[in-house]
Amino acid sequence: MKKTISITAFNEAGVLSRICTVFSSRGFNIDSIAVGPTETTGISRITIVLPGNDQVLDQVIKQLNKLIQIIQVKDTTDTPCVERELMLIQVEACQKTRPEIIEIAQIFRAKIVDISDKSIMMEITGDPGKTVVIQELLKKYVVLKIARTGKIVLERDLGINTEYLKTL
Amino acid sequence: MKKTISITAFNEAGVLSRICTVFSSRGFNIDSIAVGPTETTGISRITIVLPGNDQVLDQVIKQLNKLIQIIQVKDTTDTPCVERELMLIQVEACQKTRPEIIEIAQIFRAKIVDISDKSIMMEITGDPGKTVVIQELLKKYVVLKIARTGKIVLERDLGINTEYLKTL
Repeated sequence: MKKTISITAFNEAGVLSRICTVFSSRGFNIDSIAVGPTETTGISRITIVLPGNDQVLDQVIKQLNKLIQIIQVKDTTDTPCVERELMLIQVEACQKTRPEIIEIAQIFRAKIVDISDKSIMMEITGDPGKTVVIQELLKKYVVLKIARTGKIVLERDLGINTEYLKTL
Repeated sequence: MKKTISITAFNEAGVLSRICTVFSSRGFNIDSIAVGPTETTGISRITIVLPGNDQVLDQVIKQLNKLIQIIQVKDTTDTPCVERELMLIQVEACQKTRPEIIEIAQIFRAKIVDISDKSIMMEITGDPGKTVVIQELLKKYVVLKIARTGKIVLERDLGINTEYLKTL
């Protein structure tokens, strides 16, 4: 199972290296990591997605809380959040396949950001599920290059879990 | 000046920690870092934005190239690239300010992804300049929370620098 943790930390040289060491010294791999500034100058928000169970996560959170540069560590796996990821994907496209690829882009509300005689590049924003589906669909056209940001999350204000509502 | 480097590396436990150590051991801070899977299973693309000059960058690239898990390091600061970043921003919103905030969102083609009696959350995708402008504009409504992914880049196929074209 994939777990998501959201960390706020002081943006000092070395803090990211210390966070990564917490994972690597225990042999835990990271699926994705996104680091960016927050609403407060000098404080960064770090979102990490990792494969693992509750036990692994408990251990990681305890170790992270020991680092003095870290302000807060939160397991957001089951909290009602908006989850988004950004992907740039470049696929091979000739005169024949180009309209098909543009059609797929339109269906997924992807934006075409670059084009040449041989390729199309598009930008897709959505929950991580969406990026996986479009990547799978575009496979048959030969994917040339992919850059993905890793997931970011922000808690919903009303605290209502829309995923849970789907199961009702 | 801000520099951008794009790294491809094997996705092994410890690689990110080693990359971060290259920066922290020299006291170089990182503005943003985005790590995600690429088109090839087991290989990650890491985009790092850092403040610094050519000398700093040369040193960093040389050190990074020494790490065995790293496949390629590229300075993309001046190469023709598509640059994108994703931001989730939550601002305070009452009945009076809500229409104004929605208007700003529409102008910047931001998507409203969560709403409550007290707040609005929106998703903005664009080059890093755009996210800075919208963040500045929304400041007067009290920004509650921000999560940013850090920049990702992919080279344009035709190799034409659209930034350069603007200066002609």
